[in-house]
Amino acid sequence: MKPTFTILASDPATGARAGVLDLGRVKVETPVLMPVGTYGAVKALSPEDVESTGTKLILANTYHLFLRPGHKLISALGGLHRFMGWDGGLLTDSGGFQVFSLAKLRKITEDGVSFRSHVDGSEQFLSPEAAMEAQRAFGSDIAMVLDECPPPDADRAYIEKSMRLTTRWAGRCLEAMAGSDQGCFGIVQGGFHENLRLAHLDEIASMPFDGLALGGLSVGEDRGITGRIVESVAPRMPEDRPRYLMGVGMPEDLVRYSGHGVDMFDCVVPTRNARNGQVFTSAGRLNVRNASLAEDGGPLDPACGCAACRRFSRAYVRHVFMSNEILAHRLLTLHNLAYFRDLMRRVRGAIIGGRYGAFVREFTEGPEARGQVWRTELKSR
Amino acid sequence: MKPTFTILASDPATGARAGVLDLGRVKVETPVLMPVGTYGAVKALSPEDVESTGTKLILANTYHLFLRPGHKLISALGGLHRFMGWDGGLLTDSGGFQVFSLAKLRKITEDGVSFRSHVDGSEQFLSPEAAMEAQRAFGSDIAMVLDECPPPDADRAYIEKSMRLTTRWAGRCLEAMAGSDQGCFGIVQGGFHENLRLAHLDEIASMPFDGLALGGLSVGEDRGITGRIVESVAPRMPEDRPRYLMGVGMPEDLVRYSGHGVDMFDCVVPTRNARNGQVFTSAGRLNVRNASLAEDGGPLDPACGCAACRRFSRAYVRHVFMSNEILAHRLLTLHNLAYFRDLMRRVRGAIIGGRYGAFVREFTEGPEARGQVWRTELKSR
Repeated sequence: MKPTFTILASDPATGARAGVLDLGRVKVETPVLMPVGTYGAVKALSPEDVESTGTKLILANTYHLFLRPGHKLISALGGLHRFMGWDGGLLTDSGGFQVFSLAKLRKITEDGVSFRSHVDGSEQFLSPEAAMEAQRAFGSDIAMVLDECPPPDADRAYIEKSMRLTTRWAGRCLEAMAGSDQGCFGIVQGGFHENLRLAHLDEIASMPFDGLALGGLSVGEDRGITGRIVESVAPRMPEDRPRYLMGVGMPEDLVRYSGHGVDMFDCVVPTRNARNGQVFTSAGRLNVRNASLAEDGGPLDPACGCAACRRFSRAYVRHVFMSNEILAHRLLTLHNLAYFRDLMRRVRGAIIGGRYGAFVREFTEGPEARGQVWRTELKSR
Repeated sequence: MKPTFTILASDPATGARAGVLDLGRVKVETPVLMPVGTYGAVKALSPEDVESTGTKLILANTYHLFLRPGHKLISALGGLHRFMGWDGGLLTDSGGFQVFSLAKLRKITEDGVSFRSHVDGSEQFLSPEAAMEAQRAFGSDIAMVLDECPPPDADRAYIEKSMRLTTRWAGRCLEAMAGSDQGCFGIVQGGFHENLRLAHLDEIASMPFDGLALGGLSVGEDRGITGRIVESVAPRMPEDRPRYLMGVGMPEDLVRYSGHGVDMFDCVVPTRNARNGQVFTSAGRLNVRNASLAEDGGPLDPACGCAACRRFSRAYVRHVFMSNEILAHRLLTLHNLAYFRDLMRRVRGAIIGGRYGAFVREFTEGPEARGQVWRTELKSR
């Protein structure tokens, strides 16, 4: 079924919204952070693991699955949900972002983009129609349009030209999705130029998409610019449709941008940082390599009820991490996903409870927004 | 509690035995293959995963845990079961085998063996007393004596001298375990010399061990020699105590040596081979890299009910393996452990049912003892 979006509460002071995105197979509470399952698996986890963190919606990458194992095979095996054993919601991106960040020898024409696969060097072609055909084959609950993602330092004239192309591609994507009951989201580009963003928003918002996304804002180093664009553009996005900020973010970004009325996020931070040993906790961040954890019998996060915190000590998680056991990646990923899920639940609860402003102040002044490392007493568990 | 061993049935034609090894916290059906959890984790699995395969008893390596994180820390955190979150049975080896196969600059004296850690090059010393102190700190259900493991090509005089040392060390190990309620197994050495093996068996069998092991038979390339030694020595081991063949083996070894009255085995084959992509199935062995699996919608093994076979197709497992997702290692390890567990259950059932001889013939002539690769029809699951 086409996704439906219901806003349950909003914060009058900021525009933060708490809602439900109903995908038929699952209802997703918003604001939501989608973990990333690039190759049809959230790295280091099984579908049951992902479920156990309370996650209802994940993002899978069309670019990667298009190249390997291919959308036709996934379709022949019953679609992406069945292929990866995942009963929850799936949003697929269009592959555009990866073509522009990973692939080689890109050539963009009105028709689409040709490139060489980063996997085997083979020549590939992605058009709006091909991107939607792949996502129809996957059977994802939400498909994203193919957009051009210009480099963040491209000049204004190029960005303006590029976003017009993205608009024309968006129309072709909608046509290619005709008759499908999958959701389809448009993407607003426009670089770091506020007036281009707003102009492009007008174009994309006028089209019958099920939701709108802000693309191209997870690139570059300057989070200040991203913040100003989101602050200006997000509140002007259609109120009745979900607003999705792509590729963001850190906990402080999620808390802040929820206040500009963003409903959906995706980010590799919880999973990628887990594999690098970074643990997000209610009392701050720590790295599991830290020697101060070596004799620590407490859980990663005393406030967490995830499968890793229920059963294992910091000392054990550090031991298996230092011993290169892949169980460590799994435990840390489980925990980080549970932390981010819980964070979004707290944001949502604050919006619904009319105390979002106070929550932001507490969060920003508390240890969670910092990189603090701390330890508990050595004790038997 | 001290382990107790009960034989439920034996095959009169061969001496194969089906029994129960009661460890108090868990009852282990024999013959049993113990998976290996070197660093306090069965590689790629969580304790729940291991449980889900029906595994009740695993082996952990004293050498590795002695070096990292150290037995004192594990003791301070409540022992090895609690440290690794494993409620089932634990057998720990003494570290001897690894000192003689992994460590550098070994020097053996009557007192013990000094060596350099393969982890950080630090100087270490392992004596019978130190090995038992470590295993007491771990709180394993079964501890193994420290033995010298001479190279398989050592001359007869050296092996004879070495096995006398192992006997004296065995006595010191028993003294060091006085008052403990952990089980303690002796180890029979003697190289590939049948009469030395039998002489050493006499010495070790006369001591009050809870079980006896055959050591030093997993080394070298010639499985024929191992087979002749096991065939000759195992049936002469005390009938009322469990017999443990260390470091063996492949499915055909487990089936064959069960027929010589061996009750316990340990081997890295199910776990290590899984990480190399080798899958053991009821219809033969296959490698998950094989292109013929790419479009195969069937489970790894249609006869298997493991967590991997219940939820995922060969095409998916191959896809995540080829994409370097660690989920692949976990799924393949889960399946292989379930296969080996099921194989031992079938051996045991055949012994109890009085049809062990027929089982061996069927197994040996069937596809499971070969490296056959086959595929099922492409189908949606």
